[in-house]
Amino acid sequence: MAEITIKDIARECGVGVSTVSRAMNNHPDINPETRKKIMDVIERTGFIPNNSARNLKRTDAKCIAMLVKGITNPFFSKMIEIIEDEAKRKRYALVLRHVEAQEDELDVALELEKEKRLRGIVFLGGMFRHSQEKLDKLKVPFIFCAISVETFEQAGEVRFSNIAVDDCLESKKMTEYLLDLGHRRIAFITENMDETIGRSRMEGYWSAYVERGLEVPEDLICYVQEDVDHYCMENGYLTTRKLLQSGREVTAIYAAADSLAIGACRAVLEAGLRIPEDISVVGYDGMEIGEYYNPKLTTIKQPVEEMAKEAIRLLFDVIAERKEHQQIIFSAELVERESAARLQEH
Amino acid sequence: MAEITIKDIARECGVGVSTVSRAMNNHPDINPETRKKIMDVIERTGFIPNNSARNLKRTDAKCIAMLVKGITNPFFSKMIEIIEDEAKRKRYALVLRHVEAQEDELDVALELEKEKRLRGIVFLGGMFRHSQEKLDKLKVPFIFCAISVETFEQAGEVRFSNIAVDDCLESKKMTEYLLDLGHRRIAFITENMDETIGRSRMEGYWSAYVERGLEVPEDLICYVQEDVDHYCMENGYLTTRKLLQSGREVTAIYAAADSLAIGACRAVLEAGLRIPEDISVVGYDGMEIGEYYNPKLTTIKQPVEEMAKEAIRLLFDVIAERKEHQQIIFSAELVERESAARLQEH
Repeated sequence: MAEITIKDIARECGVGVSTVSRAMNNHPDINPETRKKIMDVIERTGFIPNNSARNLKRTDAKCIAMLVKGITNPFFSKMIEIIEDEAKRKRYALVLRHVEAQEDELDVALELEKEKRLRGIVFLGGMFRHSQEKLDKLKVPFIFCAISVETFEQAGEVRFSNIAVDDCLESKKMTEYLLDLGHRRIAFITENMDETIGRSRMEGYWSAYVERGLEVPEDLICYVQEDVDHYCMENGYLTTRKLLQSGREVTAIYAAADSLAIGACRAVLEAGLRIPEDISVVGYDGMEIGEYYNPKLTTIKQPVEEMAKEAIRLLFDVIAERKEHQQIIFSAELVERESAARLQEH
Repeated sequence: MAEITIKDIARECGVGVSTVSRAMNNHPDINPETRKKIMDVIERTGFIPNNSARNLKRTDAKCIAMLVKGITNPFFSKMIEIIEDEAKRKRYALVLRHVEAQEDELDVALELEKEKRLRGIVFLGGMFRHSQEKLDKLKVPFIFCAISVETFEQAGEVRFSNIAVDDCLESKKMTEYLLDLGHRRIAFITENMDETIGRSRMEGYWSAYVERGLEVPEDLICYVQEDVDHYCMENGYLTTRKLLQSGREVTAIYAAADSLAIGACRAVLEAGLRIPEDISVVGYDGMEIGEYYNPKLTTIKQPVEEMAKEAIRLLFDVIAERKEHQQIIFSAELVERESAARLQEH
């Protein structure tokens, strides 16, 4: 498709170029009906003016915010790109804010909301439980993506959307996979925090054992170090090294995130053990590095692109009052690669 | 140190809490001298009020922007964190903007500058040559970090700072290291774009050969695919796979970024070759994954934390007119790990 110019828009609307310009700049000196007609054509054609000044004026009118818990977590990279692109296509300015581990993302959102141009918020990651009071205070439409926030409200009154996978269910699937391979001494590495995805994934691990009438090897539940980034490779490495040095019997390691699993692999290799011949290592998330690591990492792959696309599409639909808020659960995929194998009898 | 409260500030200044509050909110109803005294104490003690509304009002007064070329590149992660923390400590709001591969970061900056609260800009990554006209237009202090932008100005008139490593020199060091290990057929993987770090690093590769009177193996200079993110693992993989399939003799692969090197490793392993026994693979940047990969990646490690700290410190000094702009070159470190070895005679 050839690039659409302001002249094309003017021709299509049967008006002059300066009228289109006035419409886009929300100039008072224009008939509201004419303006609506022009803006409809602009919307339909996806025309993007390349004049910075005009861009600025236009984006001054409306913006959406994306609040990311751990902006430097590569898991969110693709999602950020997709949401950024879509916001740009819709000609919204995007405010990108990093939420720190100790910060409450709703506090950050309530602060941002005082910015009058804000039209909606996407939360990437974060806690799955929030104070009802704070949720009620937030007036613009908001969507939680990659985290499923509990709602305490009556049916039909839901005030926000959730786009996520069922972390407990998917985690159970991975644990069952390892159990099916004959493993019983499966270590689980996660962060020791309530109301986070790490906790949901641990529940899945736990229930896989319980439902089969097997005893959970509680001595193999390992929490990452508090004082190091909870989902970085280093923490996976440190936690696994400690586990291996403890001398406890372990035949498989299931880390609640791929970054932790990569760190776990390094600790296993350093201990002179082979993956998966001596010990299986699996992760969760489906990050790109898993395909490139040696060995390739078996993991639970979240459909991050689809989730991000759905989140931003839904947000704009809610803003435009074309749709109600929704709770959408995506399925994740267990990707079998090279890092897990059937337990060998020694 | 116990947390400082607004009461401590009031006591220290010999005024009431409401006066401190008025000073922080820049209330007109306060003696300018009293205000200055209070703000000095606040500055000195590093007091951070925990009231969101007040935070917002205060940060309304001033902000800095960070423009990142490739925000999802993990290379910038640590830098973003450090600059964010320091801005917060100085009680500046931070605007984080992603600059796309095809965007000119100066255009983005000029747009942002229309925002009246902006006090300074940090550019992370980007092009090393810019139009003098655009550089002149930008009025707030700005600093290029992790990229050394050429200045065409007369001495003593420099209008911006550069904080970077000497990419050409460090890249030459890596190439010399491989030449010293006996390699002559060294492939170089980079992006085919002028005025980028990829180009500087290629110059270093080139001059290492030339200065030793060796012929540059031009058939081994491999450009990444245009249509895939230039610095991602996938592109390193695709480019290396093509090289290996070409049947050209190659004993070492030097990728202009660690992410490309990881992708290269995967292609080498898939071809049934061992690293480093059959082929050496090295990278550039010093990203965390290099320490965790199997084998551990030999690379040029940039002092990203020191660079980020210096950049933000210098920016605030320039804003406060305590310092002039500076051109600072940091040294990078060649980290020998496991992925490169002496060339074996076959």
